[in-house]
Amino acid sequence: MICGKTEKQLIHEIESFHGFAAPGLLIGAFMVDLLYNHIGSSVEADAVVETRHCLPDAVQMLTPCTVGNGWLKIVDFDKFAITMYDRFTLEGYRTWLDLDKTKSHPDIYNWFMGLVSKKDLPIETLRRSIFAAGHSVLSIQGVNVEPDFAKREKKGKIAVCKKCKEAYSAWQGDICLACSGKGYYSAI
Amino acid sequence: MICGKTEKQLIHEIESFHGFAAPGLLIGAFMVDLLYNHIGSSVEADAVVETRHCLPDAVQMLTPCTVGNGWLKIVDFDKFAITMYDRFTLEGYRTWLDLDKTKSHPDIYNWFMGLVSKKDLPIETLRRSIFAAGHSVLSIQGVNVEPDFAKREKKGKIAVCKKCKEAYSAWQGDICLACSGKGYYSAI
Repeated sequence: MICGKTEKQLIHEIESFHGFAAPGLLIGAFMVDLLYNHIGSSVEADAVVETRHCLPDAVQMLTPCTVGNGWLKIVDFDKFAITMYDRFTLEGYRTWLDLDKTKSHPDIYNWFMGLVSKKDLPIETLRRSIFAAGHSVLSIQGVNVEPDFAKREKKGKIAVCKKCKEAYSAWQGDICLACSGKGYYSAI
Repeated sequence: MICGKTEKQLIHEIESFHGFAAPGLLIGAFMVDLLYNHIGSSVEADAVVETRHCLPDAVQMLTPCTVGNGWLKIVDFDKFAITMYDRFTLEGYRTWLDLDKTKSHPDIYNWFMGLVSKKDLPIETLRRSIFAAGHSVLSIQGVNVEPDFAKREKKGKIAVCKKCKEAYSAWQGDICLACSGKGYYSAI
């Protein structure tokens, strides 16, 4: 069982949330499982993922932490690692895919390092390697999370943009960021 | 029905994913519903949310777009708006909570502008106002999304950090960002 789920259930739930059962999410599920084994499931834990790819979804699916509720933070290190920590003591654990350990599981190593094409390593083969490896390709270490980083952000004062008349946070200045030329769209 | 769900189903699913049925997520559900009414459910759509609070979870729950699969982007404008657009033509719609329109629904206006305490506006009352208002507090506009913004990010070359021996993206330099002093934790 991984996070209380069978392999089949896990694959089904990942497909339903993420669109397809990506190898990174399967490994991510083992990471969350390992973290809960260490931290215990009764602790109120916040989470950090160190990449925007795949891992945020493993945490959002398998823990109460999401981007929208603010309990999951994403840092853009492009590293395959997750930290979960007690939100009161800031003590917790960080786990990562340990490259040295993946060398005994060449499919995982080759996939992760981008050394093999999807044609030469069918997804089914890779999945079997991931389930066979389980926790054995992960390392884990106790950590203290920096208090400044862990701080919950308070919503600032709300203002109404003079230009678009929409609400925004007042720290942005007299007009909102979109009206200041930082928008990502043009009106049709 | 909102996104094909009854009010009760929607509240239950939000509680299960987000931890509690936050008012922002209920309004977010009406926003996604309105976007699908315009864009049609057969279009392969990417999404943008303009705040990190609440709205990312509405999109992740009610569309195939998630942070981890890259189909949902978050821009930090602190504005209560969602865009969904055809990922091939980059044409789509942007919807936002229209302050002028909320003035006919004072509970929503007062909650959104932070003018009333939770004690003076019980969550049940606010929820009833949100369901009663439905789409009527939203505005929507056709938009073209900037091609540079919409571009899918390719994963860069992977390197192994000389210091921590973990994998990271080579663009970060000789050692990874965490080992360069940007880490959020200290080892125990």
